[in-house]
Amino acid sequence: MPGELQTAVVGATGYVGLELARLLKRHPRLGVPLLLARESKGNFPTDLADMFPALSGNGGYALEPFSWARLHERGVQLLFLSTPHPVSRTLVPEAIARGLRVIDLSGAWRLKQERQRALYGLSDDHHELTQRSVYGLPELNRENIRDAALVANPGCYPTSIILALAPLLRRGLLDRGRGIVCDSKSGVSGAGKEPTSRTHFVSVANNFSAYAVFAHRHTGEMLEQLNLAPHELIFTPHLLPIPRGILSTIYVHLQQSTSPAELESCFRQFYSDSPWVRIFATPQLPEIQFSLNSNYCDIGFALAQDRQRLVLVSCIDNLLKGAAGQAVQSMNVMYGWEEETGLN
Amino acid sequence: MPGELQTAVVGATGYVGLELARLLKRHPRLGVPLLLARESKGNFPTDLADMFPALSGNGGYALEPFSWARLHERGVQLLFLSTPHPVSRTLVPEAIARGLRVIDLSGAWRLKQERQRALYGLSDDHHELTQRSVYGLPELNRENIRDAALVANPGCYPTSIILALAPLLRRGLLDRGRGIVCDSKSGVSGAGKEPTSRTHFVSVANNFSAYAVFAHRHTGEMLEQLNLAPHELIFTPHLLPIPRGILSTIYVHLQQSTSPAELESCFRQFYSDSPWVRIFATPQLPEIQFSLNSNYCDIGFALAQDRQRLVLVSCIDNLLKGAAGQAVQSMNVMYGWEEETGLN
Amino acid sequence: MPGELQTAVVGATGYVGLELARLLKRHPRLGVPLLLARESKGNFPTDLADMFPALSGNGGYALEPFSWARLHERGVQLLFLSTPHPVSRTLVPEAIARGLRVIDLSGAWRLKQERQRALYGLSDDHHELTQRSVYGLPELNRENIRDAALVANPGCYPTSIILALAPLLRRGLLDRGRGIVCDSKSGVSGAGKEPTSRTHFVSVANNFSAYAVFAHRHTGEMLEQLNLAPHELIFTPHLLPIPRGILSTIYVHLQQSTSPAELESCFRQFYSDSPWVRIFATPQLPEIQFSLNSNYCDIGFALAQDRQRLVLVSCIDNLLKGAAGQAVQSMNVMYGWEEETGLN
Amino acid sequence: MPGELQTAVVGATGYVGLELARLLKRHPRLGVPLLLARESKGNFPTDLADMFPALSGNGGYALEPFSWARLHERGVQLLFLSTPHPVSRTLVPEAIARGLRVIDLSGAWRLKQERQRALYGLSDDHHELTQRSVYGLPELNRENIRDAALVANPGCYPTSIILALAPLLRRGLLDRGRGIVCDSKSGVSGAGKEPTSRTHFVSVANNFSAYAVFAHRHTGEMLEQLNLAPHELIFTPHLLPIPRGILSTIYVHLQQSTSPAELESCFRQFYSDSPWVRIFATPQLPEIQFSLNSNYCDIGFALAQDRQRLVLVSCIDNLLKGAAGQAVQSMNVMYGWEEETGLN
Repeated sequence: MPGELQTAVVGATGYVGLELARLLKRHPRLGVPLLLARESKGNFPTDLADMFPALSGNGGYALEPFSWARLHERGVQLLFLSTPHPVSRTLVPEAIARGLRVIDLSGAWRLKQERQRALYGLSDDHHELTQRSVYGLPELNRENIRDAALVANPGCYPTSIILALAPLLRRGLLDRGRGIVCDSKSGVSGAGKEPTSRTHFVSVANNFSAYAVFAHRHTGEMLEQLNLAPHELIFTPHLLPIPRGILSTIYVHLQQSTSPAELESCFRQFYSDSPWVRIFATPQLPEIQFSLNSNYCDIGFALAQDRQRLVLVSCIDNLLKGAAGQAVQSMNVMYGWEEETGLN
Repeated sequence: MPGELQTAVVGATGYVGLELARLLKRHPRLGVPLLLARESKGNFPTDLADMFPALSGNGGYALEPFSWARLHERGVQLLFLSTPHPVSRTLVPEAIARGLRVIDLSGAWRLKQERQRALYGLSDDHHELTQRSVYGLPELNRENIRDAALVANPGCYPTSIILALAPLLRRGLLDRGRGIVCDSKSGVSGAGKEPTSRTHFVSVANNFSAYAVFAHRHTGEMLEQLNLAPHELIFTPHLLPIPRGILSTIYVHLQQSTSPAELESCFRQFYSDSPWVRIFATPQLPEIQFSLNSNYCDIGFALAQDRQRLVLVSCIDNLLKGAAGQAVQSMNVMYGWEEETGLN
Repeated sequence: MPGELQTAVVGATGYVGLELARLLKRHPRLGVPLLLARESKGNFPTDLADMFPALSGNGGYALEPFSWARLHERGVQLLFLSTPHPVSRTLVPEAIARGLRVIDLSGAWRLKQERQRALYGLSDDHHELTQRSVYGLPELNRENIRDAALVANPGCYPTSIILALAPLLRRGLLDRGRGIVCDSKSGVSGAGKEPTSRTHFVSVANNFSAYAVFAHRHTGEMLEQLNLAPHELIFTPHLLPIPRGILSTIYVHLQQSTSPAELESCFRQFYSDSPWVRIFATPQLPEIQFSLNSNYCDIGFALAQDRQRLVLVSCIDNLLKGAAGQAVQSMNVMYGWEEETGLN
Repeated sequence: MPGELQTAVVGATGYVGLELARLLKRHPRLGVPLLLARESKGNFPTDLADMFPALSGNGGYALEPFSWARLHERGVQLLFLSTPHPVSRTLVPEAIARGLRVIDLSGAWRLKQERQRALYGLSDDHHELTQRSVYGLPELNRENIRDAALVANPGCYPTSIILALAPLLRRGLLDRGRGIVCDSKSGVSGAGKEPTSRTHFVSVANNFSAYAVFAHRHTGEMLEQLNLAPHELIFTPHLLPIPRGILSTIYVHLQQSTSPAELESCFRQFYSDSPWVRIFATPQLPEIQFSLNSNYCDIGFALAQDRQRLVLVSCIDNLLKGAAGQAVQSMNVMYGWEEETGLN
């Protein structure tokens, strides 16, 4: 159809790729998205519905092997990469060179600082492109996303944490010297589709565990985007016995005594133009179920009687606002469409 | 300690092996069990608690590589095999030749009929030993287990189904011509510890599915032990989103109108000497939680108004009465101890 | 907007009411639905989002106390009742008398035969309206639904079972004399929102149980719609430890040897005009996850080697195809819209 | 049997009462425990197995209405109260006056400071008895428990938090000025057996939520036992979608740079005589599954590169070490038995 944007997804067979395929297929401004997989272990499925039968009966989700020729043939203008970060590091420069715009969902292009990229084992090549990439959090970076050639879609944990902290930090309300504690809990889909002893049902059910304490790669994004020093923020991820959803509990100290109404007002003003952030009035707090299967980030808070110690609670669906939904939201910004388009 | 039986477990690192190790360690008539693993992929753990930290702090569960020499050195008299059936098919004849008694928890020695063994791809060698092996369901085979050299521990599904049907079949109460439908539901531990796409948390949670319809290998045991023809019994296993437990719903027709009291009495009499079977009085039915973490098989029933159509419900913990607990119960029978010993 | 249908939901605060509110609000042919609750225990919420915060941020779901005046004032033409069956029995005759069309989601109007209605404690009043009501299963009753004043929306279990059996029964392929066994498993939302010891998380998690064996009221619908005698069908419901979804495993005997291809073809032909039924080619079987959050009924089968014994597997989302989605589908039929409208 | 201690449980029908009944029944130093319930709503069950069928088949758990006469008649010496705190506040003084020793599992007698008791709405009567009561955490209070007339069994959350913090605080290693953040997650049994909208399966499954932020009554115990000022500790409880188990993630700052080995050594020394605390060597961390169905408190930690910021992880089974198991452990101390007795 004339006027439709042509898109493609590389890595459509993972959990995030699946969500992307669903969202793009029903997006009103797009042609049928081209779904690509990089390798064909064993029987290459010719339709995503062969892997995910939930998708069947809806006209099909044809799946093809990745090739630049195929992208060209289909006139693809915007490329979504849901690939491991080393693959993204290779594909993105060529895509940009070919004149495509790219939204990359890996960690390959999120970090400007060499120190942080070291956590991903990323070398310092592609310096210029690294610096030009735009961190794809529309609520904070709308203007830059609009014209970006390369959007680095945020990690799931950072999305929940940065959106909760940014209003307070940018308004100068926090006492950073007291430190920020981010205690996050995620459903299992965040660990990917690969079967491991860690993702075995029997290991996860009736269980709960912390992991990667002081060592999770997502920490770098939080520090860079919030302009914090490493000692100012502690981030501890945990594994919840549920398929999807993230809740982050964040502990901060305010510079000075503040009322709940002032806090709520700060959040509401900061996100007044952001349809995908919902602010909860105290004492109600977000729960994981509220934002499940939606693109919302829900933010609430509880204030101590001293009006200085503050607990923030932030929830997202890790596969939507934490990945595929946010990528679509950024696309909407890139092409000047309403941010809600195709996400309801 | 003099008078203590020396035991060993081969394959202690699986879910069943773990339960066996726990049960044998606290069994009052046994020396410390020798725990063996057959292979050492990567770092061979020297203690089972390295794999299952729940076991730590209790004096340890030392784990060693399997060798016949080690069994001899420790004076092992009874060998438990929690190994894949081809391995059991190899190890058992040698163990018997060395004068050990064996309780094998695989499917390798359960079937006398060639037709059924074909499902396991088992050849017809070891004919004599195959015929001498005793099906280790104490409630039905106590006398034979007592003196057996080789006990073939029943499968989990067959345990739940055979115990529910045996009283009615042996008393001639069922109209076999009408067919027997066995609809079974099992927790995920029944599928083993190997991580697969099928056992991934995200595949199992919020889900429920049938599998291996008309094709599950456990069907052979049911037919042989209940003396049924293949067309007389349908067995459909399903995967429950829980770690452990089996519930079988069984549909039969009675030969003639029978009262609930007569049925209950039939069951109670049949199992009057069986401490590990609990009969539920109608209308109460067993649920999976009731027998979880126990060696009980719980049996209940509902009778139609016509007093001929009958639904049986049978529950077990698949890792205990369906595997390790039943093996210990058979050991108790083999050595003349109370069947409850070490199982409470 | 001119041309928009005005609808109302009575009983919007239950699980089914919530789904209905969501579906109706985004349905492209409807005005904003009027959401009504019958009583105000304690604080009457003025918006459904106060009870279900997942709904917030979307313009609101205003909730009002039920009154006929309010229905009139808003020009409501079609009334959805998600109320207990005694309430529906009272409200429906008046609604019809006032010229409204009604889709009732309770069991109050589904049964024509007095014998079956006795299970609901329903008296034999309103005889004429009872006989005029149309069983709202569009796949079987499209023509009657089109002009119905009163549509009785089917129960969740019957939907999954009737859709699987109807093609075979109507084509005369089944040997009814051998009996039909329906073993169904449902998620907890089927038991309603009322907190009870049965729906307590600790009672359901890690558990699985049968209930109401030979005594579930949904049996009547199956018998009436499939034209079966009581002794020809056994129905056993079970409670799954998941929030939503139903899987029914159904055991039947074919009149004569039939190939899998013939069976598949029978199903595909029967449902060739039914967009909300998906037929699975053997050996693939539906699983609960596949139809979750959709209006699909998924049907698959496995055939024994004798080509006579047949196992059917049928899955639905109990709150959508089993309740609210099916009601919307019937509305689409009633007003001559595509059956998919508003359900994707 | 001579030499056996006679015990009774009041409130045996709750989750904690059930665990107590199980533990006391199999404890080798006790006579058959007297199980009592305070009220008889509807049909008073005469055996606990009528409510919890898992208990059946084991000789029975006879249940009787509470009366002082019955306690006297049975020669009860030690009384366990698993009752709401206002009931405990009434029963305990009379029990003490009658010469019984008491272990109370409610919050009625845990707090010495009036400020904290206010959270329970407890008046300041029974001043002397309040001050004489002993906080029943054997690892910290063995000596006082030994001779106590009244032991106040700790809350579940405080048990997990106090045991993790006490070694560091008592050795003066923590910089209290930097604040202590306790982020705890509990299974649903902690909320009790009463069915509520909060404990409904559909509300809990696929969900996770914080509650009672800055307002949970257990905070008082932590402050009193750890001798902290209110502003020095933040405690946030969360509800996990699992039946049982608690994991607390605790964030502290060390006074000075400390090595992991020194920290591990500090914990090991502190708990060298405590069989029910297991210390994990870094980098291994406890998970909820490890201590499930046991009386262990598992403690592990992760240290930042700066060797000052420290994350502690502490796990217990809330019904055992967090309630009934700890009560039995205290009983063992009170009567001079090994602390492990009856708990393996």
